[in-house]
Amino acid sequence: MIILQKLRIGDVIYMNAEILAVGTELLMGQIANTNAQYISKRLNDTGTNVYYHSVVGDNPQRLKDVMTLALGRSDAVIITGGLGPTRDDLTKETVSEIFGKKLVEHEQSVNKINAFFKNMNRPMVNSNYKQTFFPEGCTVMENNVGTAPGCYIEADGKVVFMLPGPPSEMKPMFEQYVIPYFYQRSNCKIVSKYVQVFGVGESSVETAVIDLIDKQSNPTIAPYAGVDVVTLRVSARCENEESPEDFLNPVIEGIMERLGDAVFTVEDETMEEVVAKLVLEKNITFAFAESCTGGNLSALITSIPGISQVFNRAIVCYSNESKIDELGVNPKTLKNFGAVSEETAIEMADGIRKKAGTDVGISITGIAGPEGGSKNKPVGLVYIGFATPDKMECKALKLRGSRSRIQNVACLHALDMLRRYAIGR
Amino acid sequence: MIILQKLRIGDVIYMNAEILAVGTELLMGQIANTNAQYISKRLNDTGTNVYYHSVVGDNPQRLKDVMTLALGRSDAVIITGGLGPTRDDLTKETVSEIFGKKLVEHEQSVNKINAFFKNMNRPMVNSNYKQTFFPEGCTVMENNVGTAPGCYIEADGKVVFMLPGPPSEMKPMFEQYVIPYFYQRSNCKIVSKYVQVFGVGESSVETAVIDLIDKQSNPTIAPYAGVDVVTLRVSARCENEESPEDFLNPVIEGIMERLGDAVFTVEDETMEEVVAKLVLEKNITFAFAESCTGGNLSALITSIPGISQVFNRAIVCYSNESKIDELGVNPKTLKNFGAVSEETAIEMADGIRKKAGTDVGISITGIAGPEGGSKNKPVGLVYIGFATPDKMECKALKLRGSRSRIQNVACLHALDMLRRYAIGR
Repeated sequence: MIILQKLRIGDVIYMNAEILAVGTELLMGQIANTNAQYISKRLNDTGTNVYYHSVVGDNPQRLKDVMTLALGRSDAVIITGGLGPTRDDLTKETVSEIFGKKLVEHEQSVNKINAFFKNMNRPMVNSNYKQTFFPEGCTVMENNVGTAPGCYIEADGKVVFMLPGPPSEMKPMFEQYVIPYFYQRSNCKIVSKYVQVFGVGESSVETAVIDLIDKQSNPTIAPYAGVDVVTLRVSARCENEESPEDFLNPVIEGIMERLGDAVFTVEDETMEEVVAKLVLEKNITFAFAESCTGGNLSALITSIPGISQVFNRAIVCYSNESKIDELGVNPKTLKNFGAVSEETAIEMADGIRKKAGTDVGISITGIAGPEGGSKNKPVGLVYIGFATPDKMECKALKLRGSRSRIQNVACLHALDMLRRYAIGR
Repeated sequence: MIILQKLRIGDVIYMNAEILAVGTELLMGQIANTNAQYISKRLNDTGTNVYYHSVVGDNPQRLKDVMTLALGRSDAVIITGGLGPTRDDLTKETVSEIFGKKLVEHEQSVNKINAFFKNMNRPMVNSNYKQTFFPEGCTVMENNVGTAPGCYIEADGKVVFMLPGPPSEMKPMFEQYVIPYFYQRSNCKIVSKYVQVFGVGESSVETAVIDLIDKQSNPTIAPYAGVDVVTLRVSARCENEESPEDFLNPVIEGIMERLGDAVFTVEDETMEEVVAKLVLEKNITFAFAESCTGGNLSALITSIPGISQVFNRAIVCYSNESKIDELGVNPKTLKNFGAVSEETAIEMADGIRKKAGTDVGISITGIAGPEGGSKNKPVGLVYIGFATPDKMECKALKLRGSRSRIQNVACLHALDMLRRYAIGR
């Protein structure tokens, strides 16, 4: 293991990292640099400081300048992008040039890429072999999703990681190779808990815990507001032999006392992950009837592997006709109260529950916009029906924002109702 | 108007810009730098080159270093963040220091901030007055959404814009002040088309058009690979009085000749937008039966407002039982061939089409993983059934990657089949 340059503060050793994204598509604004966000968050977990993000295009001279600058001011440089088969992809070439290394062929990668194209039944193009050349002396990182392997090289007291640009390829490689690398070389760690609150506004959350925020220095408490979820990140920095729970638990308990069951998790997990765990553990079967959310609720819960044990089916009933046929909604209910009404929502939830034979039926009907609103029923009006064998209830929401925001928030409310039901069982 | 340093190529004048975001929350990975994406896209429209993005935290020395670097390599620097009332907010202070200017009070801003707090009935905190001081000689940009005004300063042949960090405040200010600034100083514009190709690998796309890429300098052609979609960005730089179509059309035609109907659009739009336009225009009604995609296909198409005119319903039939009940799949088919089979896919598609009474029925059944695969039926095996009154067909796919990637790519294939059907009608 090469000893890298490290910054020492007291007894704590940690590295300074810079994240460098290569790709003209970022500078053209075609995509946002979400890789930098992901990598930053995870590196902070390992006790590594991220001091800079940079983005540069596929231009040889500017790429070289920016890489040279990064190596001058940071111990570790994490590069994303520029590993593809085209001539514009210059990451490995430029790193090799800076360190004065040759590019050499990696036999295992050649075999793997040959097998990949054979398996996919796609013609192999010569340019793909470019992806099998790496700077001499580097460690190759396998890509189990796409064709471009990554690599890292330690030289001149620095380390440079080269990862593919597409997030679906970058993330698994980063988790498999980069995260363990940094944990091994750090004698401290940052452990964070994410107290996530649903259905309470940001300022109310902050007001409730402001005294805790003010008196804490380790762990720190940082609020962040997302789409209808407010997260309090509670981060403790401790040496490897210390137990982070000793720092974190008293603070988490203090927060929970104030916010109660509006807190749906204290981990870095989504609402659908929390709900899926609960319904699987308690074996609560359920089915959905979705109108204005158009399959989004179902897509959220089926993002969880294994959910088929309790999730029976969903019907996306966009037309009135399908609400009658599929869910047994009374045509008179639709006529008298409209498709977007408490009455219809309840009949939809009850209908899907009975049809699927599940413990719970949940329906969503509303006006997601941007068109279709009226004075009495404006865009953002959403009803969520919730049916069990014992009771039927309906929650009315007045949501704001774009079509996709209204759809997302409606789904979160539906999942939160299922969560509260599961907790109570 | 100060004449700025400009790069001249032929008769075209344009500036090089750098986008610099200031804020520790970006380096902690709490948020993605979506401001840089927005600003990049809009600056490119004005004919301004964006060569670098940088992100730095609220640290005085590193902030000064990064700003000095940016001013050395770019004509225009657009800074977001660091204009707030706290001691951590150092953008204006650092720019003033670099240019050797004093910070002076701006009377109009003082009046405005006093009125704002009076109107909100909130106590005025002294630190808010920090937001009324600006570098001497700058132009103040009003903030109609939040409390922090922005400003820009022209000095030493450079221009520096300072904008607030929250996108809801940054965007209106950027549109009101920054965009007109660049249009006034540019005698050219950049117009881009996005030739998007589905179902052909990146290297095959590039091989097919490499001669076009090589012989072009205006417009330029740049490939970019996303999730199973390869995009060729074709960008023409032309003077204000020239017609960009004269540059773009011959090149687009050349690409289309080579790639044919694998090209699903030449605009900056998604597959679902393309498909929705086609089915609405041709009044093709359709319904979905989704198993392994769990509602994602339906969620994609219902992201388009107005799709309810042609999209009748979807059934997410996770259980075998629901495939039989809802879609009329023969239990023997499930028993003999399995839920993930060509035979089941076709019966599902035919079943949903007949039930919904639509022109087209599309089904997806497969193994999205990460569990549930076997030697004969590995994770990533997906069948897409496609039924019309005249014919039934099935496409078998072997997909790779995470659960969500497999789900996404399967949905794209289903949409592409609907697109090809609509084109042929």
